[in-house]
Amino acid sequence: MPRFRLDIEYDGGPYAGWQRQAGQHSVQAAIEQALEKFCGEAVTLRGAGRTDAGVHATGQVAHIDLMKDWRPDTVRDAVNAHLQQAGERVAVLAASVVTEDFDARFSARARHYVYRIANRRAPPALDKGKVWWVPKRLDAEAMDAAAKQLLGRHDFTTFRSAQCQANSPLRTLDRLDVMRSGDTIEVFASARSFLHNQVRSMVGSLKKVGEGAWTSADLKAALDARDRAACGQVAPPDGLFLVSVNY
Amino acid sequence: MPRFRLDIEYDGGPYAGWQRQAGQHSVQAAIEQALEKFCGEAVTLRGAGRTDAGVHATGQVAHIDLMKDWRPDTVRDAVNAHLQQAGERVAVLAASVVTEDFDARFSARARHYVYRIANRRAPPALDKGKVWWVPKRLDAEAMDAAAKQLLGRHDFTTFRSAQCQANSPLRTLDRLDVMRSGDTIEVFASARSFLHNQVRSMVGSLKKVGEGAWTSADLKAALDARDRAACGQVAPPDGLFLVSVNY
Repeated sequence: MPRFRLDIEYDGGPYAGWQRQAGQHSVQAAIEQALEKFCGEAVTLRGAGRTDAGVHATGQVAHIDLMKDWRPDTVRDAVNAHLQQAGERVAVLAASVVTEDFDARFSARARHYVYRIANRRAPPALDKGKVWWVPKRLDAEAMDAAAKQLLGRHDFTTFRSAQCQANSPLRTLDRLDVMRSGDTIEVFASARSFLHNQVRSMVGSLKKVGEGAWTSADLKAALDARDRAACGQVAPPDGLFLVSVNY
Repeated sequence: MPRFRLDIEYDGGPYAGWQRQAGQHSVQAAIEQALEKFCGEAVTLRGAGRTDAGVHATGQVAHIDLMKDWRPDTVRDAVNAHLQQAGERVAVLAASVVTEDFDARFSARARHYVYRIANRRAPPALDKGKVWWVPKRLDAEAMDAAAKQLLGRHDFTTFRSAQCQANSPLRTLDRLDVMRSGDTIEVFASARSFLHNQVRSMVGSLKKVGEGAWTSADLKAALDARDRAACGQVAPPDGLFLVSVNY
């Protein structure tokens, strides 16, 4: 059974998240249904990142085992045709054949996210649902400086959802950069893996620094507290994009 | 009566175009209704560019006369609040007081549009409705070279809608650049004014050059024909954005 890697883009808005759930429509289910229509097999897709409801992706990665040696481009085009027909907001950017030891979830060495904030008085008209609207002016440089305290290996309990199923709250954060470009602020976060809601929890807390409600030291104290109650705010899913995964 | 200039962003998808029309919902009507809720006056907004159904704007400009000397920021915030409440995909980016001789339409010295093409095999999932999906690989350099033949003052009858109400088909095109960045091709078009459907007609014809169906000389011949039937194709509204207006 050949194994295929799929690189996937989606608008998370209409979905209950990546993961298949009874009674709800997920990105995973949308692609599995399209695959089944294409090849007649009931298949299970495994994704690199289980993004939450409303979170988007420009570079989600998943793998799948099929019965036949399909040409990868045929898989991509056929699945996209079925996704389009079903009105899904999901597209397969690329399909490729990988070896059996490739596992989209467990082979991932780094996951890269970007979180976008529209920092302006006017609400977003064109990017509605794809950005967090923060009308109050944020100090992006202060956010960036404070963010550096979260780099490295830490117990991220403060920035972890109560529903997080990971065995350990320890994670190694490799990148957390905050950059302003006009009215847009982007937060770039990279790690081998993240805890549930970790990026949104960090961004929500950084926003407190940006608006002056928290000092840089307050952010460090929140991390050190190792207490979910110390988290500043969980940023909404709208602004979050899974950008790429390294293997 | 003080005159206000409004800088406006909108997602053209849900609208029948900029201009108010009986029985249809337009961007102009959406803003006029929000203004009326705010100040109680029945007002008429005049825009710089009468964009078609489905065409977007990041920098439309309009003017309006109000009875009261409102603070411009109050106008912006109040109109946005009413637009949000009505679920409109329109936002006022800025409001400012202008002199009585400022006319958003007739004082405009230059209008700048960008047209975005997603040139890839996979359909757009995140940018659906905001880009023209062209799966076949286009030669952006050939498109850019051919585009230069349209610069300057010409009779643009070929690239003009049969419904165009302008007195003359003569226009002076100041910029027509085609640039590729990864899978995205952007066409930048600038002129003092454009004929109805001119940008979309030029982009549709340039696409024929990009896919190799037309040579550069074919594009020139189409221009010289001064005949609507010689136009290659009218690109869909999805990819078109009114970016800015100079005064």
